[in-house]
Amino acid sequence: MSANVQVQLPDGTLASHPFETTPMDIAKGISEGLARSVIAADVAGKIVDADRPLGELAESAAPLALKLLTSRDREALDVLRHSAAHVMARAVMRLYKGVSLAFGPTTDGGFYYDFDIPETLSEEDFPKIEAEIKKIIKDKEPFERFSLSRDEARKLLDDLDQDLKVEHIDTGLSDQESVSFYRQGEFVDLCRGPHIPDAGKIKAIKMMSVAGSHWKGDVSGRSLQRLYGTAFFDKKELAAYLEQLEEAKRRDHRVLGKQHGLFSINPEVGQGLCLWLPKGARVRVALEDFLRKELLSRGYDPVYSPHIGRVEMYETSGHFPYYRDSQFAPLYGQEVGGMLDAWSQRLADGSLSKDDEDKLMAAAEVFGVKLNHYKPSASSEAKQGALHDWQTENERYLLKPMNCPHHCYMFKAQPRSYRQLPLRLFEFGTVYRHEQTGELNGLLRVRGLTQDDAHIFCTADQVEEEFRATIELTKFVLKSVGLDDYRVQLSLRDPDSSKYVGTEEQWDNAEGALRGVLQQSGLDFNEEPGEAAFYGPKADFMIRDCIGRSWQLGTVQLDYNLPERFKLEYAGGDNTTHRPVMIHRAPFGSLERFVGVLIEHFAGAFPMWLSPEQIRVLPLSDKSIDYAVQVAKQLSDAGLKATVDNTGGKVQAKIRNAQLDLVNYMAVVGPKEAETGQVALRDRIDGDLGSMPIAEAIARLTKEIETRQVRQAVKPSDVTL
Amino acid sequence: MSANVQVQLPDGTLASHPFETTPMDIAKGISEGLARSVIAADVAGKIVDADRPLGELAESAAPLALKLLTSRDREALDVLRHSAAHVMARAVMRLYKGVSLAFGPTTDGGFYYDFDIPETLSEEDFPKIEAEIKKIIKDKEPFERFSLSRDEARKLLDDLDQDLKVEHIDTGLSDQESVSFYRQGEFVDLCRGPHIPDAGKIKAIKMMSVAGSHWKGDVSGRSLQRLYGTAFFDKKELAAYLEQLEEAKRRDHRVLGKQHGLFSINPEVGQGLCLWLPKGARVRVALEDFLRKELLSRGYDPVYSPHIGRVEMYETSGHFPYYRDSQFAPLYGQEVGGMLDAWSQRLADGSLSKDDEDKLMAAAEVFGVKLNHYKPSASSEAKQGALHDWQTENERYLLKPMNCPHHCYMFKAQPRSYRQLPLRLFEFGTVYRHEQTGELNGLLRVRGLTQDDAHIFCTADQVEEEFRATIELTKFVLKSVGLDDYRVQLSLRDPDSSKYVGTEEQWDNAEGALRGVLQQSGLDFNEEPGEAAFYGPKADFMIRDCIGRSWQLGTVQLDYNLPERFKLEYAGGDNTTHRPVMIHRAPFGSLERFVGVLIEHFAGAFPMWLSPEQIRVLPLSDKSIDYAVQVAKQLSDAGLKATVDNTGGKVQAKIRNAQLDLVNYMAVVGPKEAETGQVALRDRIDGDLGSMPIAEAIARLTKEIETRQVRQAVKPSDVTL
Repeated sequence: MSANVQVQLPDGTLASHPFETTPMDIAKGISEGLARSVIAADVAGKIVDADRPLGELAESAAPLALKLLTSRDREALDVLRHSAAHVMARAVMRLYKGVSLAFGPTTDGGFYYDFDIPETLSEEDFPKIEAEIKKIIKDKEPFERFSLSRDEARKLLDDLDQDLKVEHIDTGLSDQESVSFYRQGEFVDLCRGPHIPDAGKIKAIKMMSVAGSHWKGDVSGRSLQRLYGTAFFDKKELAAYLEQLEEAKRRDHRVLGKQHGLFSINPEVGQGLCLWLPKGARVRVALEDFLRKELLSRGYDPVYSPHIGRVEMYETSGHFPYYRDSQFAPLYGQEVGGMLDAWSQRLADGSLSKDDEDKLMAAAEVFGVKLNHYKPSASSEAKQGALHDWQTENERYLLKPMNCPHHCYMFKAQPRSYRQLPLRLFEFGTVYRHEQTGELNGLLRVRGLTQDDAHIFCTADQVEEEFRATIELTKFVLKSVGLDDYRVQLSLRDPDSSKYVGTEEQWDNAEGALRGVLQQSGLDFNEEPGEAAFYGPKADFMIRDCIGRSWQLGTVQLDYNLPERFKLEYAGGDNTTHRPVMIHRAPFGSLERFVGVLIEHFAGAFPMWLSPEQIRVLPLSDKSIDYAVQVAKQLSDAGLKATVDNTGGKVQAKIRNAQLDLVNYMAVVGPKEAETGQVALRDRIDGDLGSMPIAEAIARLTKEIETRQVRQAVKPSDVTL
Repeated sequence: MSANVQVQLPDGTLASHPFETTPMDIAKGISEGLARSVIAADVAGKIVDADRPLGELAESAAPLALKLLTSRDREALDVLRHSAAHVMARAVMRLYKGVSLAFGPTTDGGFYYDFDIPETLSEEDFPKIEAEIKKIIKDKEPFERFSLSRDEARKLLDDLDQDLKVEHIDTGLSDQESVSFYRQGEFVDLCRGPHIPDAGKIKAIKMMSVAGSHWKGDVSGRSLQRLYGTAFFDKKELAAYLEQLEEAKRRDHRVLGKQHGLFSINPEVGQGLCLWLPKGARVRVALEDFLRKELLSRGYDPVYSPHIGRVEMYETSGHFPYYRDSQFAPLYGQEVGGMLDAWSQRLADGSLSKDDEDKLMAAAEVFGVKLNHYKPSASSEAKQGALHDWQTENERYLLKPMNCPHHCYMFKAQPRSYRQLPLRLFEFGTVYRHEQTGELNGLLRVRGLTQDDAHIFCTADQVEEEFRATIELTKFVLKSVGLDDYRVQLSLRDPDSSKYVGTEEQWDNAEGALRGVLQQSGLDFNEEPGEAAFYGPKADFMIRDCIGRSWQLGTVQLDYNLPERFKLEYAGGDNTTHRPVMIHRAPFGSLERFVGVLIEHFAGAFPMWLSPEQIRVLPLSDKSIDYAVQVAKQLSDAGLKATVDNTGGKVQAKIRNAQLDLVNYMAVVGPKEAETGQVALRDRIDGDLGSMPIAEAIARLTKEIETRQVRQAVKPSDVTL
C-alpha cells in the first residue's frame, strides 16, 4: 500500500492525497460550509466516519470513490440515529447505576438501546433522560474511533463492568482479531460505527417508548429493557414524523378492521389466521373479481390447487428442508411421523448421542414404527435413509408455503408444445408460513396469506414481452385502487458471486430485458445489484401510502431454477425438447397485506368500486320504511351494495351513523320522494346532492363504480361531524 | 304367544292364521299366480323368507303387518342377489377342491363372495363357473332354513371343513345362542338370509370380475379371492345394466378429465388431491360465479376462513377427537407434537405398559419436551392433562375437516342482535378428510374438497322460511345444470331414541316445518326415520344422472348442537339473549364431486354456460388466420371463451378435432367471410347453421349462455364422426 491514496469525487475529479487524509479534510479543501454540513462519507460503497483516514480503506491501487454525505443523503439519517442511540445510552448511564449495555441499533423509524438496569424504567423517566440528552448534545463533543485487540478490548470492557459486551467479545466476535470502539467524553462503547462528527448534529431527538426485551433476542436469555427513540436533522422533520405516527394510529387497520367488521383474528382459531367477515370479504371479492376478469382478458388461465402437497415435492423444489424454520411442521396420515422428523434433524445436526438414539428407537418400537434399515452402527446417511423411507411410505405433507410446485405439476400434466406458450396459470392461492408470534401484525403479517399468484411458463425469447405485460398489469392494478405513488426496485445479481443458477448469458439477457422494459415504461426505478434471488432477477413495487409510509406490494420474479428442478419441458418448433423459463408474479402480493394497506391508506373509507356498503337508504321516519325497502331493492337489482337503516329515530342520527360507518352514499327518502319516485342523494364526502329520480342516482353511482373512480384517500378527521 | 297369529295385509284386511302359516301360504290363499311370483315377504318391516312361519315373527299380540314382495319390489332384488351369491359359491365348491367360504353379501350393483381357494382364479374360469351356475338354477332346488345352537353349528362347520366360518362363530357371533343356516341341495351355508323360494327365480346372472381381498377386510388378515357377479329377475334388465356399465365406462370422468385436460391427480403431489387444470378450472369458475351471484342476490354474505384451526376449536365443536380417524393428523409448530398425540391415544385405550411409558418419557426428554405434571404414578386423567397442557401451549392445529367452527367464530366476532338475523355466511371452503387410499376415486372421492358451504344463523321462527329458500335455491341450481331427475330424502329422528340433542318441541317443530315445506314444494320426497344426524334433521338431494345412476349431492341440515357448544347468542327484541339455530347447506355438495358427476352426466360435453371452450374459430387456410384472430378477439371481447385453430391443415380435420374436443360451436372463416364480416357457424350438435354476421353469432351464443340453456346430456357415441 502506498503512502498516498488516489481519490475520485462524484464529479469525476481525481486527486492524490496522503494516507491520513480524511473525508472531512477533503470537504474542508472544498469549502468550510460543506465541511460543516458533512455527516459521514461513502467510500467505495461503504459508509464511514468523516474523520476516517482514507488510506485505511484502500484495498488496491485503484482510486477510491468518495462521496461526502450531508443531511440530504438518505444514508446520513441512519448514521445520525446510531449516534443518537449512543447519546441516549450515555444519558442513561449518567442517571442510573449498574447499567449493562447490550445493543443499540437503528430501526426504520429511529433507534433503540437494550440495557440491563436494576431500576424499572417507564415513560415517566423520559423527561429526565431527555434533559440529560439535551445537555450532551449542547456540549457538541466529538465521536472518536479507536481499535483494540480482542484481549485489550476484553480487559477494557471488564474494567467498565460491561459483562454483556464481554460475553459478546467471547462469543459473537470470537473470530475477530481486533475490534473498534467509539468514545464520546466519559462514554465508551464497543461499536462498528460509523458515527456523526459530533453530537451537535442531532437537531431533534425524542424518546418514544420502553419495552421488555431479551439478550440477543432469545426468550430464555437475560431480561433487558429496551428504550426506543427517534432523531432527525431538523425539528420540522421530527414534528412531521410524530404527526405521521399519530395519523397511522388513527388509521390502524387492526382498529378499523374491528370497528367496521372487516376481519377478525381470534387466538382460539389460531394466531395470524384471518377470518374475513362479510364487509372485508366483500372488499376481497371485489378485488378478486376485478383481477380475475383482467387476467382472463389478458390471456391467463385459471387453475386451483390443494393447500397441501407431499414433502417430497418440496424437496424437489428445494423449499424443504431449506425453509423449514418458516414453515409449519410436516403433516402426516400417522401422528408419530413428526417424531421421525425431529429425530432426523438431530442426526443431521450431530446432536444425537448413542444413548438418546437408543431411547428414540425404543419409543419408535412402542408406536409400532418399523425402521427396517435403521442400524445404530450404520452411517448417518444410511440412518437418514431409513427414517426417510418410513416417511415416504407413510405420506408426509406440507401445508403449502407457496403455489409454484403445484403449478409446475400442472405444466407437467400434459405434453407441452411451443404453440401453447406462454402458458399463464393463475390462482388465488392461500399459503401458510409459520411466522414468529411476535412478528404477527393484523393483516400485514399473518400465518395464512392468499397470493394473487400466477406462473408464466415461456420461452427465453418471450421473457421481455411477458415482463412488459406484467409491469403494465401491475401499473393498471395500482392505478385502479388509487395507489399512484410508487417506484420499482430492480434486483440484479452480484456480478462477483457465483451463487446463482442459470448461465451468464441468460442473466445478461434477462437483466437487460428487464432494465429495457422499465426504462421504456417511464416508471421511477432503481437497480440493486446483489439483491436478486439466486434463481433469477426480480422487480418489486415499493408503494408510498397517503401518509408517506412505504410498502412492498407487487412483485415479478424470473426463475431458471424450478423448471430445472422439476425437469419441465416443451417441444420446440425444431422438434427437440426445451426447458421453459418461469415467471412468478403477484400484483397485489397477498390479499391480506394488500387489503391491510388499503384500509390504512383509505382510513377504512373505500372508494365506491371496492366499498362493502355503497349506499344506505335512510327513511325520514318509520312511515317511509316501505318505500326505503323498495328503493333498496331497485338499487340492489342494479348491482349496488345497498342497505336500509330501519333502526327508527331521527334522520340526522341516521346520517351521522352512515358517515361514521363510511358508507359512500346515502339516499334519504320521505313522503315527498315516495310520491315522485325520487331519492335525496347525499355523498359522504361532498354532502347533499339534491333530489333526483332513482334511475339517475343509479346511473351516477354505477358510472363511478365502472370507471373505478378513486376520489380521495380520506383522512379520518374528515369524517368527524 | 297364542297359537294363532293376527295378520294385516297392506289393503287393511285383517285375518287370524295358525302359528305355522307362512307368507307363501297366504299368497296361495289369494291366488296361485301371486304365489308363483312371491320372492320374499316384508313382515313388520323385516324382510324374511316366503316360507317362514309367521308365528315365529310375532313379538306381541298386535297384528303383524305383512307385505308380499314380488320382483316389482325394490327389496326383492337384494334377496335375489344374496341367493345368487349362494348359487355361485355352490358352483365354485363343485368345481374346486379345498374351498373355505368367507362372506358373500350383496352390493349396489350385484353381489360377491370371498373364498380362500388354493387355485388362483381368473376371468378365464368364468365360463366354466357360469355353466355350473346354470345347471343349479335349472334344478330349481329350494332354499331351506334351519337353526342350530352355537355348539351344534360349530360342529357342523368343522365337519364341512369351513375353518373361516368356525372362526366367525367363535369371534363375530360369540354373543348368539343360536344361528341360522341355509341349505340348497348339498350346499350348506351359515347365513342370516333371507333367500328366494328356489334358485329358479334367478332369470339372469353374470359373473363380473375377480379381485384380491382379505378376511374381514383387515389387510394383515388371510388373503382371499373375491368373485363379483350380478343377477336380475329379467334378462332385459341385465342387458340394460351391462349397457349402463359400458356407458359409464365411456363416461368415466377420470378418463375424460385426462383426455380433455380438466384435472390431474398426481401421487407425487398427493393422492386424492386434485389439480384443477385450466379447462376444469374454467368450469369451476363458471359454477362459483353463478352461485356467488345467486347467493348475493338472495341475501347471503361472503366470508373467507383459513384452512387450519386450533385443535381446541375442534374439541369445542366435538369434531375432535370424535372423527380423528377420517382426519389428517394434527399439525404442530413443533414437529414432535404428533408423538404426544400418539402417546395420549395409547393412554386412552389402555395399551401403554409401564415399560413403554418409560421409553416415551425418555424420548420426550431427548427432544426437550418438558412435561411438568407428568408423573408415572399419577392417574391417567392427570397424565392426559399433562400431555394436553403441552399440546395447548405449543399450538396444535387441524387441517380443517369442515368450515362450521370458523363460521361460528365469525358469528361471535361481533355482538349480534335479532335485527341481523338471519345471518347467512357463505364460502367456497376447501376442507380435508383423510379417506383411505383404496376409497379414493377421481373427483368423486377425494382428500381435499371444496364445499359451496354456508351457515345460516336464525331464530327458531325463521327455520321454515330459511329451509324453504334453501330448497328453492337447490332446485334452481340443479335446474340450471340440467339435472332434472331427483328426489329428496328427509332424514328424521328415531322417535324411540334419546341420542339427539335439542328438545322434543324443537324437533317436532323443525321436522314439521321441513315436511311442510317439502310437501308444498311439489318435490318427490321420502322420509327416513332414524337417519337424522344427532344434532338435527336433514334433507339430501338424491340425483339420477342421464344413465340412471344415483348420486347424493346437495344437502340441508339443521343444527341445535354447535350453537350450544360455541355458546352463540343474540340479543332478542325482548332485550334478553337467545341462542340461534344453525342451518348447514350446500347445493353442489362439493365442487369436486359436483363437477365429477357433471363430467359423467354430460360425457364431458358441457352446456354453453359451463363450457371451457365455447367457440373455436377455424380458418379455411392459413391465409385466413388474420381474420380468424380478429373474429376470436371480437368473440372474446363479447365475453365468450373463444380460441383459434392455427394448426394448419384442412378445415375438415379442424372440424373433426373441434368435435372431438367437445367445443360447442365452430366459426369457419375463409376469404368470403372476411370480405363480408361474417362467420359460417357450426353447432357441435346440430351441425352447419349457415353464414351470418359476427354480431348475430355473438347474440345467439350469448343468449344461450345467459339463459343457461342445457340442450342435452350427450352420449359419447354422438360425437364420433
